[in-house]
Amino acid sequence: MPELSPAAFDQLFRQARTYNAFSGEVDDATLRRLYDLVKWGPTTANTCPARFVFVTSPQARARLGPALDEGNYAKTMAAPVVVIVAYDMAFYEKSPVLFPHVDARSWFDTKPEAALETIALRNGSLQGAYLILAARALGLDCGPMSGFDNAKVDAAFFAGTTIRSNFLVNLGRGDPASIFPRSPRLGFEEACRIE
Amino acid sequence: MPELSPAAFDQLFRQARTYNAFSGEVDDATLRRLYDLVKWGPTTANTCPARFVFVTSPQARARLGPALDEGNYAKTMAAPVVVIVAYDMAFYEKSPVLFPHVDARSWFDTKPEAALETIALRNGSLQGAYLILAARALGLDCGPMSGFDNAKVDAAFFAGTTIRSNFLVNLGRGDPASIFPRSPRLGFEEACRIE
Repeated sequence: MPELSPAAFDQLFRQARTYNAFSGEVDDATLRRLYDLVKWGPTTANTCPARFVFVTSPQARARLGPALDEGNYAKTMAAPVVVIVAYDMAFYEKSPVLFPHVDARSWFDTKPEAALETIALRNGSLQGAYLILAARALGLDCGPMSGFDNAKVDAAFFAGTTIRSNFLVNLGRGDPASIFPRSPRLGFEEACRIE
Repeated sequence: MPELSPAAFDQLFRQARTYNAFSGEVDDATLRRLYDLVKWGPTTANTCPARFVFVTSPQARARLGPALDEGNYAKTMAAPVVVIVAYDMAFYEKSPVLFPHVDARSWFDTKPEAALETIALRNGSLQGAYLILAARALGLDCGPMSGFDNAKVDAAFFAGTTIRSNFLVNLGRGDPASIFPRSPRLGFEEACRIE
């Protein structure tokens, strides 16, 4: 495969930013196109534990609002769409469909909850990152955040289920006036080694 | 921003596959280019907890081998590069550099280990997904896997440190003969809802 273009590297990584204000609308067809990219990303034994709630209506926003940290409230309430990136702790119930050639369900369904949590958080977070980069590939901007009360979101959106919230992503067309100067990153030698 | 091309969607998501055999070499300059894309991806308060070991030498492979599940051994020993995607539990030690405008270190350094583990695993996994997609953007193929003994990898590569292994990614040029028929994915209605 060839490399993608420098412009694509910029759009996905180098020039992409976490925006704090957005304009535009994100229609349902775009959300379906987004998922149709995200779903192909790899997960452990194709478990696909992530579940996504696209919060768009005033009613759903009103349920989300009380869970947000103060600094995230106004920007999240104003975003065209807020994605609740979550994961299903009973993800292995789908294994007979998602990994049909072996009994993958039995690899998971006797594990203790802490081990399942690790698997769901690892793979659900991978899928959350696929969502961020797929949104950028579709020309959208993102505002991902962890500053909220997970238990409140779970009570408001996932009561009586095995689904748990992971993080949130605001989606729309980013307002360049809403970003801060870019923070530093670790150099190669600080974050990596070649052995 | 415009959308990326359909060919880019294919390369990143729709036609990308998890390969079980690879050819080609991945030189150190490519690994540095890879990190120089990955590093820009967003993390909680720019914590950037991921650490990456690029296993390339016979000596390092020999230390990794005993930690691998039987089914992952041969393909991983033969891959041009194996990336150990890890995270630093003491990630907040870098906060004064990475998030210099506030005292972000104090948000983390009194949290219990379980809470830090959740933050490191969530954000370290996001960065692992950025690595998978950045590799694909550079024209490389990936073989990510969780089938190994994390404690053995930690003992072999991270003894005496606060770094913990998360998952592994084989890197190279994928051999199309090494992939299985594609497994199903969840439909939009099974994985998503719009509220």
